[in-house]
This record gives sequence, structure tokens and C-alpha cells, in this order.
Amino acid sequence: MLRMDGGAVAAAMFTTNLFAAAPVQISRDHLHNSRGHANVLIVNSGGANAATGPHGYADAQLIGDYVAQECGCAPDAVLMNSTGIIGKRLPLSNIQQAITPLASSCVTGSAEPFARAIMTTDTRIKMSTRLVGATGSDDSATANSKNPMNQPQIRVTGVAKGAGMIHPNMATMIAVITTDAALEPNELDAMLRVAVEQSFHRISIDGDTSTNDSVFAFATAQRGAAADHKELQRAFCEVARELAHMIVCDGEGFTRAFEVRVRGAASAADALAVSKTMATSMLVRCAITGGDPNWGRLLAAAGRSGAKVDPERVSLCVGNVVLFQHGQPADTSKQIAAAEFSKANVIIELDLGLGAHEDFFISSGLTQEYVKLNSEYST
Amino acid sequence: MLRMDGGAVAAAMFTTNLFAAAPVQISRDHLHNSRGHANVLIVNSGGANAATGPHGYADAQLIGDYVAQECGCAPDAVLMNSTGIIGKRLPLSNIQQAITPLASSCVTGSAEPFARAIMTTDTRIKMSTRLVGATGSDDSATANSKNPMNQPQIRVTGVAKGAGMIHPNMATMIAVITTDAALEPNELDAMLRVAVEQSFHRISIDGDTSTNDSVFAFATAQRGAAADHKELQRAFCEVARELAHMIVCDGEGFTRAFEVRVRGAASAADALAVSKTMATSMLVRCAITGGDPNWGRLLAAAGRSGAKVDPERVSLCVGNVVLFQHGQPADTSKQIAAAEFSKANVIIELDLGLGAHEDFFISSGLTQEYVKLNSEYST
Repeated sequence: MLRMDGGAVAAAMFTTNLFAAAPVQISRDHLHNSRGHANVLIVNSGGANAATGPHGYADAQLIGDYVAQECGCAPDAVLMNSTGIIGKRLPLSNIQQAITPLASSCVTGSAEPFARAIMTTDTRIKMSTRLVGATGSDDSATANSKNPMNQPQIRVTGVAKGAGMIHPNMATMIAVITTDAALEPNELDAMLRVAVEQSFHRISIDGDTSTNDSVFAFATAQRGAAADHKELQRAFCEVARELAHMIVCDGEGFTRAFEVRVRGAASAADALAVSKTMATSMLVRCAITGGDPNWGRLLAAAGRSGAKVDPERVSLCVGNVVLFQHGQPADTSKQIAAAEFSKANVIIELDLGLGAHEDFFISSGLTQEYVKLNSEYST
Repeated sequence: MLRMDGGAVAAAMFTTNLFAAAPVQISRDHLHNSRGHANVLIVNSGGANAATGPHGYADAQLIGDYVAQECGCAPDAVLMNSTGIIGKRLPLSNIQQAITPLASSCVTGSAEPFARAIMTTDTRIKMSTRLVGATGSDDSATANSKNPMNQPQIRVTGVAKGAGMIHPNMATMIAVITTDAALEPNELDAMLRVAVEQSFHRISIDGDTSTNDSVFAFATAQRGAAADHKELQRAFCEVARELAHMIVCDGEGFTRAFEVRVRGAASAADALAVSKTMATSMLVRCAITGGDPNWGRLLAAAGRSGAKVDPERVSLCVGNVVLFQHGQPADTSKQIAAAEFSKANVIIELDLGLGAHEDFFISSGLTQEYVKLNSEYST
């Protein structure tokens, strides 16, 4: 449970899956009714409360009402989510019994207990923080690392969970970004969308957009306005990207991350399509796991992405090594290429040579352990 | 090598990958120049001759010219393909040395040596045959099984290879369907397209459309015209579906096949989108491998397919067991559901309850063995 007793400006982005879970549907409604305000966020693991029909919906409503009562706020001021198996109802009485002590023990000032509580198959707690100058701080533009003695006043903190069913729009992931800056609902919403587009919408573990994915943002206004909105936006983006990277690196069966950077695309859509297709190709992901310099799979993925690709103009590098240039293979030894494919974080750069658009996508090697874990998930 | 010395009407469908291999580009041109005629098909494994630049293209042209010379036909009468690693040039002299003995030893009347020669990681030879009545046969409409004593005269024989990089449009697969029926180039082409749409375009192993996928069809006219074009079309479809099923069941690391049948869709595109998304979901495929009745993943896949889906109207069955109906989970025990998920061929039926369109898609469980094989492919 995350309590913001003074109330907070709230924004959220939810899964686009048409089987959106009951808590997602309810949170969406609450956020709409409250015009972007909330006092509490409650999350449970162990059951997604998705595909549970009217009973599941009623369960989520009861939980929300109970939380509102315990926290002394309007039902619409409660946001919620669930994560776990789809199609199973929640053990309602267990949850209700837990809410009372939870509401009274909810600690102010630390996100860590919340970050720990939302973990499921996650092996590591995922948190990220940035500080930015507030209006009236002595030197807000150079706050933080450049001038550590000059205490900046605004904090942006994010926590996340997610280790499988990770894909844009969104994944089985829950992330919460809070700030003590003062923001209007539309400002917070816009800031969240920019940050998510550059982070959680650029990672994939298994291509499955789940029924429960949500990113919430809250602004409590405790520290007043940020001196520089761009700086606050940058902090949101950095926190979101750091969390997204942590999610990839804690993917089920994780061994190695890789990033595909595409430039020279004829359009922004093409840049994204190529980087996403390359990063999510199962055969590419298998090659990454094995440290196998089977770079032909990277080009094959680009070629089937639907984007404009002219093989004659394509260049492909892995790390600092050129593998393909001017429409033909470079004269690179397999040993040198293999060394690049075996790094802890493989960087793949593809230049399409057609335009000025670029984008990126982050994923991880596909491992036997991932398959094993997900073959036995519900049993 | 497949020789048709009298010449044959020819048709083909090639990969849509923009990194189409040199032999694919050349076959496409030859087929265009010859207006749908060919005398020889030559296939090599061990190297895809894709992403090999102008040198790779010249290699493929030399191979084609050499084959034409040995077989005494025009260069445009040679079709070709390659399969194997992308981005590596072919050992040209080895191939040239093999062509002369191959041309002289090419046996008439059996497809089996060809089917065996194109195998790569395939563990089984893939062949399928149907017989249909020719004009002048006594009772062509009831030929074949209904009247086995009445020898039908026309033969439709297919062979295929393919065990990885399998996905529509097309996969790392090569299939050849031959018939001794007389057909015009446009007739053969149309017949092939119908058959491929219902077979190779409805299977997936790993979602990767390769650089070399091709399906060829040849009609030699040795037996004259088919009595009933519909019957011949049906034979083409059956042969193609049988080959497609064999490809799925010989997928790398294969343990279990499954078929998703979607009906009640609002449009044909929706029916295909839902069945394909469900069948290619990595999480669904992991659950199939484990015989794990984690059916929520099936609904989650339907919900993110982009098709019109109303959870309230959806019904889901696996085998004969109802799992979800009228927007809520059915009262089915996990044991009963697990038994259905553990069958050798799992049948999943989803009724969207929105319209009259239906479609299907076939795939296999994703296994640790698949990941292992494809992590070490090039090394």
C-alpha cells in the first residue's frame, strides 16, 4: 500500500489488452472520476484478477471500498492493481484481513517496503531516484551531482516489478513514480507519457502484453514547483529508463541484455519497427544467449520488419566491430565477432542509410531457464 | 536436383523478407522471364547465400548457368534455392563439382532422394501424395479412396524441409509440389496460392520469416488434364497442409503440437489475428510444453491481438473441456484441464461470439531444447 494522505495529483498508463484486469478497469474509472487525484495505491501479487468476470470485478470494488474506509478517503481516491495468475479469483477475506494492519503500519518517507512487497518472480528490488532543484533553491540548474552541497529539493522516485510477460503497451509490470513536486494533473500525465515512451515501451522479454500492466505517477506537491520543468521531465525519463533496464536484467532466466540501436531510417515508425523486430526475434535472442555471432539473423529480422530497408545501404555493427557494410559482409573474423556477442551488455547498431530517424529497443537473451520457468508457472 | 526434362509449367511463392537471398531473387527473375516455365530446380543446404552482396549474387548466377549447361536448357529454365547460415558465401567449386554427377544420376519417378537431400536439421523426411482422376478415367469424381480399384491417373506429390525459422510469408522452409496434370501457368499459380494460404501461412515455430523461404510448384502435363479442377485444388491443399503439419512436428526441440481454432470473429482478419497471436505467444507455447493449464495466457493473447474482442462474449475450450464462458471462468478442475493440455496434439477453440468468421493456426510448444539448439547454431 502506498498512502498519500494529503492527496496527490495522479496519472497512469494501463495495458491496452482487451482482457484488462478488474483492478485496471476500476483504476481507470477512479482516475477519470477524480480528475487525476488519488490518496492510496494498493497492489497484491499472487493473482491478477483478470478474466474473472463480474465476481472478480466485484471483488476488486470491495477491496477498493475497504481501503477507502480504512484510509479515510473517497472510494475514487483509491487506485489499485493485481499481479499473478490470470483467471483465478482473489482470496478476498485474506486480503481484507491484511488491509487494516497495512493501513496503520504504512511508513512515510521510504519507497523500499512498497518496492519489496510488489515483487513476484523478481529476484531484486527495483528502485531509482533522481533529485532536481525546486523553485527557490539557490542553484537549481546545477543541482545534484554538479553541486552536491547545494541540497536540491525535489525528489523523483520510481519502483517497479516485472520479470515476465514484458512487452510494450505494457508488460506484466507495475511501476510507480512519485515526486514531491507540485504538478497539475495534465502536466503529470504528459510527463509520465514521455517517460514511458522512452523506457517501458522500449523493452521486451517475451512479447506478451499482459492484462494488468500499469505505470502510476503521483505528485504530492510537498516541495512546491520544480524550477525547471525540463529538468523534472529528464528526471522522470531517467528513473523510468533505469527501472526498465532493471526489469530486463531481472527477466526470468536472465543471462545477458542487449540493445538494438537503429539510425538512418526513412521514418520514425520504421526506426521503431526495425529495432523492435530485431530485439524481439527469438532467433536473435537465442544467438545472444549463446554468444553466437550469427549476425545474419539480425539482418533477416530487419528485412521482415515491414520497414523500408535497402540491403545495399545497410551497415551493421556489434560493439565496435563492423559485420556488414555496403550490402555485403565485412571481413571480420568469427572470433572477434563472438567476443562482442559474449559481452554482458551487447550493443547492436544498424544504420539503414535512408533517412534521419533513429530509435532503440532493449531485450535479453532467450534462455532455457526462461522456458523451464514458464512451462511450470501455474503448477 | 529436380529435373523435368520435357519442361514443366512452374509457379512459386517466395519470402517477403527484404533481405531475400540471391537464389530467391534469381528464381523470381527466371520465373518472370520464362512466363512460368522451368526444367530444373537445384537446392543446396549449408549456406543460405543471403546477405552475401554482389559476390553472392554472382555465385548463384554461375551455379544456375552451370546447371543449365549440364541439363541442356536455357538459364531461365533453372530455379534454385539455398538454405543454411545467412551471410556466408557458398563454396562454389564444391557445388560446381557436384552438379555434373548430379545431373547424370538424377532419377525419374521418385521424389524421395530429393526430399532426403534437402533435409538440414530436419529429423524426418517430409513427403505427401494425393491421387486424383484425370479426364478420361472411368469415374474420376469418386477416384482414390472411394473407389480404390479404379486407378486414378493424376498424382500430386509434395516434399518439404524446415525445422526452424518457421513463420508465414514464409519460413526457413522449402517445399516443392509437383503434379503430372496439365495446367496453364496462371492455373498452377492460383492453385499454389490457395494451398499455401491454408497451410504454410498457418504455421509458426519461431515467428521469424527467413530470407530464403520458397514454395515451388511444377506441372508436367504427362497425364493430361484433371477431370475436376476442384478435386485437384483439394489435393494441392491436402498435400500442403500435410507437409506444413510435418514441419511443425519436426520443429527444433519439438515435443507437442497445438492448434488454435477461432470462430465467431467479426472479420476474417480478426479471426486470423486472434488465432495467430494465441498460437505464437511465447507464454502460451511454454505452457503447452509443460502441459500447464495456464489458460489465462490464451485469453491474454487474444486480448492483445488487435482484433475486436468482448470478454463477455468469449468462450474458450481446450479439447472437450470448457475453461471460460460468458465472461467468466468455468468450474473446471485443474486436473481435468491439465489432462487436455498434456495431449500429444492440443486443440484450443475460442469462440469470440461476434460474427461468422473463423480461422486457425498451428504451432508447437516452446522447449528448452529449441533454445539450446538455436543458441549454438553457427558455432
